[in-house]
Amino acid sequence: MNRTLYLDTVPIPDALTALKKELDRDALIAPETIPTDQALSRVLAGPVIARYSSPTFHAAAMDGIAVAAETTFAAREGSPVRLSPGSGFTSVNTGNPLPEGRDAVIMAEHVTFDADGAALIEAPAFPWQHVRRIGEDIVATELVLPRGRTLTAFDLAALLSAGVFEVEVTGTARMAVIPTGDEVLDYTERPVPGPGQVVESNSVMLVNMAKNAGIRAERFAPVPDDPAALEAAARKALAAGFNVVVLGAGSSAGTKDYTRGVMERLGRVVVHGVAAMPGKPALLGVAENGSLLAGAPGYPVSAAVAFEKLVLPLCCWLEGRAAPRRARLPVRLARRVPSRPGMEEFVRLAVGRVGEDYVGLPLARGAGLITSLTNAQAVAALPAACEGVEAGETVQAELYVSQEELDATLVVVGSHDNTLDLLADALMGQPEPVRLASSHVGSMGGIAALSSRQALCAGAHLFDPETNDFNFPFLARHAPDLDVAVIALAVRHQGLIVPKGNPKNIAGVADLARPDVVFANRQRGAGTRILLDHHLKLAKIRPDQVRGYDKEEFTHMAVAVNVRTGTADCGLGVYAAAKALDLGFVPLARERYDLLIPRAALDDPRIAALLAIVRDPAFQAHVRDLGGYETDLSGREMRPGMGLGGEG
Amino acid sequence: MNRTLYLDTVPIPDALTALKKELDRDALIAPETIPTDQALSRVLAGPVIARYSSPTFHAAAMDGIAVAAETTFAAREGSPVRLSPGSGFTSVNTGNPLPEGRDAVIMAEHVTFDADGAALIEAPAFPWQHVRRIGEDIVATELVLPRGRTLTAFDLAALLSAGVFEVEVTGTARMAVIPTGDEVLDYTERPVPGPGQVVESNSVMLVNMAKNAGIRAERFAPVPDDPAALEAAARKALAAGFNVVVLGAGSSAGTKDYTRGVMERLGRVVVHGVAAMPGKPALLGVAENGSLLAGAPGYPVSAAVAFEKLVLPLCCWLEGRAAPRRARLPVRLARRVPSRPGMEEFVRLAVGRVGEDYVGLPLARGAGLITSLTNAQAVAALPAACEGVEAGETVQAELYVSQEELDATLVVVGSHDNTLDLLADALMGQPEPVRLASSHVGSMGGIAALSSRQALCAGAHLFDPETNDFNFPFLARHAPDLDVAVIALAVRHQGLIVPKGNPKNIAGVADLARPDVVFANRQRGAGTRILLDHHLKLAKIRPDQVRGYDKEEFTHMAVAVNVRTGTADCGLGVYAAAKALDLGFVPLARERYDLLIPRAALDDPRIAALLAIVRDPAFQAHVRDLGGYETDLSGREMRPGMGLGGEG
Repeated sequence: MNRTLYLDTVPIPDALTALKKELDRDALIAPETIPTDQALSRVLAGPVIARYSSPTFHAAAMDGIAVAAETTFAAREGSPVRLSPGSGFTSVNTGNPLPEGRDAVIMAEHVTFDADGAALIEAPAFPWQHVRRIGEDIVATELVLPRGRTLTAFDLAALLSAGVFEVEVTGTARMAVIPTGDEVLDYTERPVPGPGQVVESNSVMLVNMAKNAGIRAERFAPVPDDPAALEAAARKALAAGFNVVVLGAGSSAGTKDYTRGVMERLGRVVVHGVAAMPGKPALLGVAENGSLLAGAPGYPVSAAVAFEKLVLPLCCWLEGRAAPRRARLPVRLARRVPSRPGMEEFVRLAVGRVGEDYVGLPLARGAGLITSLTNAQAVAALPAACEGVEAGETVQAELYVSQEELDATLVVVGSHDNTLDLLADALMGQPEPVRLASSHVGSMGGIAALSSRQALCAGAHLFDPETNDFNFPFLARHAPDLDVAVIALAVRHQGLIVPKGNPKNIAGVADLARPDVVFANRQRGAGTRILLDHHLKLAKIRPDQVRGYDKEEFTHMAVAVNVRTGTADCGLGVYAAAKALDLGFVPLARERYDLLIPRAALDDPRIAALLAIVRDPAFQAHVRDLGGYETDLSGREMRPGMGLGGEG
Repeated sequence: MNRTLYLDTVPIPDALTALKKELDRDALIAPETIPTDQALSRVLAGPVIARYSSPTFHAAAMDGIAVAAETTFAAREGSPVRLSPGSGFTSVNTGNPLPEGRDAVIMAEHVTFDADGAALIEAPAFPWQHVRRIGEDIVATELVLPRGRTLTAFDLAALLSAGVFEVEVTGTARMAVIPTGDEVLDYTERPVPGPGQVVESNSVMLVNMAKNAGIRAERFAPVPDDPAALEAAARKALAAGFNVVVLGAGSSAGTKDYTRGVMERLGRVVVHGVAAMPGKPALLGVAENGSLLAGAPGYPVSAAVAFEKLVLPLCCWLEGRAAPRRARLPVRLARRVPSRPGMEEFVRLAVGRVGEDYVGLPLARGAGLITSLTNAQAVAALPAACEGVEAGETVQAELYVSQEELDATLVVVGSHDNTLDLLADALMGQPEPVRLASSHVGSMGGIAALSSRQALCAGAHLFDPETNDFNFPFLARHAPDLDVAVIALAVRHQGLIVPKGNPKNIAGVADLARPDVVFANRQRGAGTRILLDHHLKLAKIRPDQVRGYDKEEFTHMAVAVNVRTGTADCGLGVYAAAKALDLGFVPLARERYDLLIPRAALDDPRIAALLAIVRDPAFQAHVRDLGGYETDLSGREMRPGMGLGGEG
């Protein structure tokens, strides 16, 4: 294979330093003069001096009368001083200039007038009372704002008040984002992807991340994996005045990773590979004309990390301003996170408040999972020296959402069920929206999370054959000290998901032992797996007789996808999953899916909102519409021994 | 006077609730369908379901070879399994679909090839190793994002990956900002304000605050104080499709405050007056066509508060999203802040880090001071029930800047000197910019701030007649336990600032006792005032013999402005202030202006940057260019007894 090697992977801060040395900021981005009212978030190229004072005159700060303070010094309650209009006082409105000889304003509320129109004052005014004096806010000739200031809305108003109608600001980065790849489809053509094809979307992510950071960015049409085409597209962008060119994908070191070679022809490569996971295959260089060149990794999470930590800070630096930073918050990790020493690790987290703590549940780590970013409320950067963080340890997390939104986030840990999506949507439709973040770790994982105080709510459907009951026996065994309210979400139908028409005539668990049947299993601890094991035992089938028993999926839908694509011949799951993918379904059992909620959390407004929805007949109808659900028990608190009957 | 009364002033949350009841959100803002790539920060009107899975096929997650995992199970180090091309393996690049019959990928780095092109494998591959399975990221038919989601850059990429090329989102607020007032000048005409006139700038502040909050807003030309003209302008905006109309100024209850009357003709007033300082004279109402009407107070800080706390949250609510919130941080108050019970009080703060603490210095409270917003790094909202906060107490402050910028902010407390502006500008020009926030409380106030650990640096020029020395005697007296490094900033010339040409022939302190001479004094604790008192004593003049002795200004420039405008005949101040306003100057004394820095803070990078600039010959030349400064001592550490000589 024709392989390009990485340069030494370097820590992110070193990569930034290296590029700042190679880029000639002043040559690349020249200052410009623009109208002040257009200068929001621009950066002052030099100090700005006030041309006018503000106010430019002594001004009344209240509606009332302007007086000479010393004429009122004798005023007392019950013994008023009388001032004649004109000689003794002048009526003024807020903002009026103080007439010659007046140095105080008395509020209208504190003045009465006699029949002759004279003002009666019952308290002395002190000099300069309710007067805005010349230059009180801004003094002509003084500094209004220093160079390097990123202009705020307040700054613009101050500049205009000071008579500064245009400002010299630093130039701006202009970024071109050029997606690449033979396999990518241009989303603007609304394509249907075939095997080996993907809808290109990284470019939209990068352009909009830039927009959020105040950087002007434009997306180009995708370019195939052809070095000449890639070089031509980049040269076109440079010729059009883009001073930052980002090439999407192809920055790795595989046979079709042409970006580094192209970058070498356009100028020089400075960094190839950073010590970050995800984000490692990033490329940074400088074009012949001094422009910044970047190669973004192909996986969306890698691209996002490399872009946020490398490209955006460099663009902001070019503009002379600080890169926007996310707020940080200490977050307690719910699970152990291993980390490779020598690499900074960016762990996406679902975060919710549990009591006074914020608890972070590490999301799936694959760099290809865009949903690990959309489902995350925060990201924790584990430093290169870190070999991992233990469960229960606290890390500093960068927030993707505001702390208010975090406070309104409810993390549901445990088993996966499709009704959770309905709940998530309904919760967002409330007058005070609640964001539901779910972490799928199986029913047993949910109970473990409750007992270690990592969540306020767990979804579970654990069947106990001995008592013919759900969840309570497991709570008694694994969380004996926890006072938990068990609220039924729904009774659902589990069964064998088979291809449409059931070509292999699978009729029940007995067929799983057939050598021509490949099964798709769920992960250990999942209620569905426990149910399977129960039925296998009843049928006297050993796990090693089931082909695919060791292949674990984490959701019903993933099991259904296996069946849909022929990877498996059947799997155990809910009816809704079979129906959604237009598959066959062989009913096996009804089971109760409960929400387990520590009783102390029942008052929490997020939990209250959740329960209100579960008890809403409209929501229950919506659940039944999914198919395979019964809602007679939905929203009712269960007691031990109720089983599917609803009576204790 | 023709006076409109306020309605009952209501707390801000009640005002918001009242308006939400009166506004028909769905009627006012209809959902619309837009291309996904244009939907950043828009709000989903309904749940979005995936049309495609991602990936749509099992895909290689690495460059390497695709194999059937079970064919490799026997592989061991030194005893490789040999796989033939085609039948045994297929070369794949990242993203390629897995060929039929393959279920694992082995990384290129872990494969060697023999002369026949067969692959040699020395470790078993496990099933699905380095494979991205169908639907691993997104499953067709499942929820991608719930309704009410404010779309992020990540979300847009997820939606496109799921084949969602357009989205239904809530409509947007469209805001018109109409400034009003006979006294305001349209900044677009680059006017020169005469007496009673101001450059209108609130509208630009409000439009750009809206822009920062993601609200579309447009400024209209100013309208004079004429109810008919105001009504016509508002009707024009409503007719043009603006669904939020903000009328600037005139919302108070004075003779020329027409906004409420106009609003009553346009629809109805819901709130007039909120329990907030600044911000009280705010108006909120609903137009006949359902649009939101608002009257902003005239003072910029009032307008900013009312807009940020009332109008922007209502606009965001109309769009179905959470209003952006500023990050919060506990801040220790350097000074007591009184607060009127019953009113929520918004206190602007200069904030800097001192050790592990953030210390907030309350800025001037006038609602007319736009610089109290531009100089602030944070604002603290004191609740209505609060009667004030004592010095040293901690409050939650909302940050105007990032915490990183706060960490790079150096608060200099103490005496005012024009060279601090030069320092502020030079510090911002550093590779790692430092923001200088200065709080002018006089030299003695600076020493007090150091000894209560509220600042890392104080500016002082306290002359002690007994020892003929500066600052040290005062430090010994007022901060005996503090180990302070005293670094000279400059030697400066103090003198009597008089009108150009010195029309009253003021030759020295003796003339201050003349009955025809009005003096402008500095505040108690100011080094300049101490200097004056010393010279008065030498001249045997009592304070009560000096007209204007009791009138206090806080800066040299403010004193100079008094002289410039004829409010005073002379004042004591530095030469630079006289020169800046083209005034006369009668030299009185040379004095040393020092930076007092606790020795423990000398290592702080902000202090190090400050001292490096003070010692820079280019900076010193710049200081001398101001006039009235000598820089022979600048940057040198002083010792007791050095006086102006520089030798101990």
